[in-house]
Amino acid sequence: MPKVRLALAQTNPTVGAIQANLEQALDQISKAKDQGADLVVFGEMAITGYPIEDLASRESFILEAELAVRSLATELTKPQYQGLAVVIGHPAMASPQEQTGWAIAKNCASVIIDGQIIGRYAKHHLPNYSVFDEYRNFVPGNELLTFEYKGLRFSTVICEDIWQQGGPVAKLADNNTDIALVLNGSPFEIDKDDKRLALVKELVKRQSCAAAYVNLVGGQDDLVFDGDSIVVDSKGRLVARAKQFKQDLVLIDIEAKDEIEVVGEHHLTKPNDNWQAWNALVLGLRDYLQKNGFKSVVLGLSGGIDSAVCATIAADAIGAENVFGVSMPSRYSSDGSKDDAQNLAERRGINYRVQPIEDLVKPFETSLDLTGLSAENLQARVRGLILMSLSNKEGHLTITTGNKSELAVGYSTIYGDTVGGYAPLKDVEKTLVWELARWRNQYAISRGEVEPIPVASIEKAPSAELRPDQVDQDSLPPYDVLDAILEAYINQRKSRAEIVSFGFNQELVEKVLTLVDRAEWKRRQGAIGPKITGMAFGRDRRLPITNKYKG
Amino acid sequence: MPKVRLALAQTNPTVGAIQANLEQALDQISKAKDQGADLVVFGEMAITGYPIEDLASRESFILEAELAVRSLATELTKPQYQGLAVVIGHPAMASPQEQTGWAIAKNCASVIIDGQIIGRYAKHHLPNYSVFDEYRNFVPGNELLTFEYKGLRFSTVICEDIWQQGGPVAKLADNNTDIALVLNGSPFEIDKDDKRLALVKELVKRQSCAAAYVNLVGGQDDLVFDGDSIVVDSKGRLVARAKQFKQDLVLIDIEAKDEIEVVGEHHLTKPNDNWQAWNALVLGLRDYLQKNGFKSVVLGLSGGIDSAVCATIAADAIGAENVFGVSMPSRYSSDGSKDDAQNLAERRGINYRVQPIEDLVKPFETSLDLTGLSAENLQARVRGLILMSLSNKEGHLTITTGNKSELAVGYSTIYGDTVGGYAPLKDVEKTLVWELARWRNQYAISRGEVEPIPVASIEKAPSAELRPDQVDQDSLPPYDVLDAILEAYINQRKSRAEIVSFGFNQELVEKVLTLVDRAEWKRRQGAIGPKITGMAFGRDRRLPITNKYKG
Repeated sequence: MPKVRLALAQTNPTVGAIQANLEQALDQISKAKDQGADLVVFGEMAITGYPIEDLASRESFILEAELAVRSLATELTKPQYQGLAVVIGHPAMASPQEQTGWAIAKNCASVIIDGQIIGRYAKHHLPNYSVFDEYRNFVPGNELLTFEYKGLRFSTVICEDIWQQGGPVAKLADNNTDIALVLNGSPFEIDKDDKRLALVKELVKRQSCAAAYVNLVGGQDDLVFDGDSIVVDSKGRLVARAKQFKQDLVLIDIEAKDEIEVVGEHHLTKPNDNWQAWNALVLGLRDYLQKNGFKSVVLGLSGGIDSAVCATIAADAIGAENVFGVSMPSRYSSDGSKDDAQNLAERRGINYRVQPIEDLVKPFETSLDLTGLSAENLQARVRGLILMSLSNKEGHLTITTGNKSELAVGYSTIYGDTVGGYAPLKDVEKTLVWELARWRNQYAISRGEVEPIPVASIEKAPSAELRPDQVDQDSLPPYDVLDAILEAYINQRKSRAEIVSFGFNQELVEKVLTLVDRAEWKRRQGAIGPKITGMAFGRDRRLPITNKYKG
Repeated sequence: MPKVRLALAQTNPTVGAIQANLEQALDQISKAKDQGADLVVFGEMAITGYPIEDLASRESFILEAELAVRSLATELTKPQYQGLAVVIGHPAMASPQEQTGWAIAKNCASVIIDGQIIGRYAKHHLPNYSVFDEYRNFVPGNELLTFEYKGLRFSTVICEDIWQQGGPVAKLADNNTDIALVLNGSPFEIDKDDKRLALVKELVKRQSCAAAYVNLVGGQDDLVFDGDSIVVDSKGRLVARAKQFKQDLVLIDIEAKDEIEVVGEHHLTKPNDNWQAWNALVLGLRDYLQKNGFKSVVLGLSGGIDSAVCATIAADAIGAENVFGVSMPSRYSSDGSKDDAQNLAERRGINYRVQPIEDLVKPFETSLDLTGLSAENLQARVRGLILMSLSNKEGHLTITTGNKSELAVGYSTIYGDTVGGYAPLKDVEKTLVWELARWRNQYAISRGEVEPIPVASIEKAPSAELRPDQVDQDSLPPYDVLDAILEAYINQRKSRAEIVSFGFNQELVEKVLTLVDRAEWKRRQGAIGPKITGMAFGRDRRLPITNKYKG
């Protein structure tokens, strides 16, 4: 018999749904207890959901979270939970002396044993970069919490604490910690699984303890928490790995810090990057819909790759029967495009209708005497108006299909093809859209299913079809070149001169970067969408609209 | 002859326009020198504009700012600047050891004497609340910079340093400072003038030194820097006050810290709040237009108060001849509304045209079978489409006329009346819109001018006119009640229970707060507009869209 059976409870809380999150936690505790768990560990802020942003500065919110933790503790005094320890994340009020006027709370983990809150840890390192604003929202803690339980020593730390040097995490070894319990709200990025694992291995090596790293799972606005909780023993061996993009409960038996075994079946390998990216996009959309009370989506189907991929993501997220595609052909739409749109819908069984725009566009063109760019934008806006009308009338969420490369250079019509509440491809550059489309078709084949995306949509030259014979490459460089320049400018923050020195044409670099800068005002009014890279548009990259810098 | 003649150079830099800002600074230095100045002090980040947001993490940007400071120093070696000292704000690289991976620079003030950079101060307290993200973007400094010059001792600190306790500012007295030079990028809020003055008086009392508080002026996206630079001697007497909402150069003669005199004419009184608010809105719009290369605006004129006030702000900002108003009547528009719209345009000489929407709306209604709310939204979206078409065709910036109360409760049609690049009334609640309208008319009378805003637009019941006989109060409480509830919820962050305890009807509070929460997704896609209160929508108030909290 092991000393301690520990359960990693990888849950999907909803921000602000404190009561529901509490019930979810209790449900997991009950399941874990049924499987013999002694100790159940949850992710960061599992009580409130994460990130709570400026809800952190509402007194009533912090107090309600505290009440929830206390009611959890009370529940755990019941006989069936005897001998059980629970560690759970939640915000808690800072003392009046510690409050800054804006930040009034700490980001905490409470340790509850036999229904008593025996200790509370407050996160020390508050991430305030990328998408995070924790220094805005929280007061930092300074002390490590270590407790002994059934003959082993556990210490709690929270997420960013292990990504930085110093602070409480540096005292794990000094406190004779056997197992570090790391509560996380760590959002998905492609390749982040490897980073986290390396980080945890580094931690156990430095502090000679084992680590149970528990992450949240689920979509929250523009973030997707992927789960992938892990256990690494003090020798640096990966012992267990929870599912990605799903709730999970992983149990491990701990004899000693270097003697840990997973209970039941498990896998230690990680899925490939395309599978991960796709599932992040699916979960992000699904949770946005479910958590905001939507049952269906509407989107324009142009026959192009972006709308085909978006429709497939939506079908994977909520079922094809809840996806409503609309083909909105104009005089410039090719027969091929109309066929591809219909083909896409039929392959998967997506609801499909055709609403030609000619009769809606004409009166504007005539009344306002529109030609050229304004006439092109008009078509896109009439389509946007159709989608929003159907959304209003039928209750679907409109999803907007633009990809990251388009958003970067402003290759879209604001209030036109950009309308919608959620943008699945917001952080997916065009070259990755194609890669994911091919991957998704292959994945279907490997499962004996029909390939969801028409090959023509993948292979034809992309076009906005807003004037005769238009293709994207009339205005933009080939997408592989564009994406490489964007990667250097946006993700790596390189200057014009540096990007040119990488071997790109100077004039082209100048053109692309100018487009990126000029499109800032449009991006600021864009829908949210799931972050899957190291640098997404939105709160990850905060630049002024008014900005004359050309360096 | 005084010991030192000091010039407060209240400039209007543009973010990223480093070369132009440098020239602007040199121009002011030259003017100050002509008037016998020994020392010229600029505002925070006068070299780069402020706030620079994530430009702070671009190496090339920080290096270009440094080059600009050095080229300023070189310029100051010229004979005509002999004996001159300059203190100017700019970002500068932190040492590799200090950099965090995200923040690579410090927010600095360089002291240049006879063309030599003799010292550099780095801001210690980095505001990371409200609209500020400085802890994200900068590495803090820790040491006070004090220098002796012509027999007096000067110390430099930057903005937030005097709003917080501790840090370098606490050492002003220890360093025998005669005059604290405070470089600021302090955005306008109603009542902030009094707060700043009280703060500076408090500072001079605590540290027994005089203070020269130099602020920036100008609009930058959603912030308006109002100038209003001040000088307070060590006895706490207000000695000088620069203009509000205009560039200014104020010279003072310093004999000793308690013996300071302003040079030339000056005023010490502050304008009334409505004048200040109005001028903030005017400057915010004017600078957004000028700094982004727009010469004209287009907006819908409904005959209502919001569009009347917006048109008047725009006319005050860039001249009525550059304002293009469009009346877009529907079958539901009253004759009164059409008359009021035309009347408004005629009073001021605003360009005016009428574009009925009936023929544009009808085909959508028929094709898509729209009734009820979707038909109402359709009308607003057709109007938005008209404005954007005119913007595309004629090159105007579209301004959107919604006020803060509407934005709060989502009383608007997204992609309809919300279209546009700038929202002058974004932070002006409806009751203040009326107050400002009345004030602006009175102001016109006091100057012998025609009242710009038709009395009917001020006095009639507000209506969206999207269905027969509709008025706002069909769906919303009276605006004075609504604004009071919004003030409690948004600005004061009170809970439902607390607001009810203030005496508001429970059902009404529930309804209003639910509307506010539900409209978050719309606000997220809204245009920027000038912050003039303690809590504006936008980056001042960051809440999740997905948020089930009902407390």
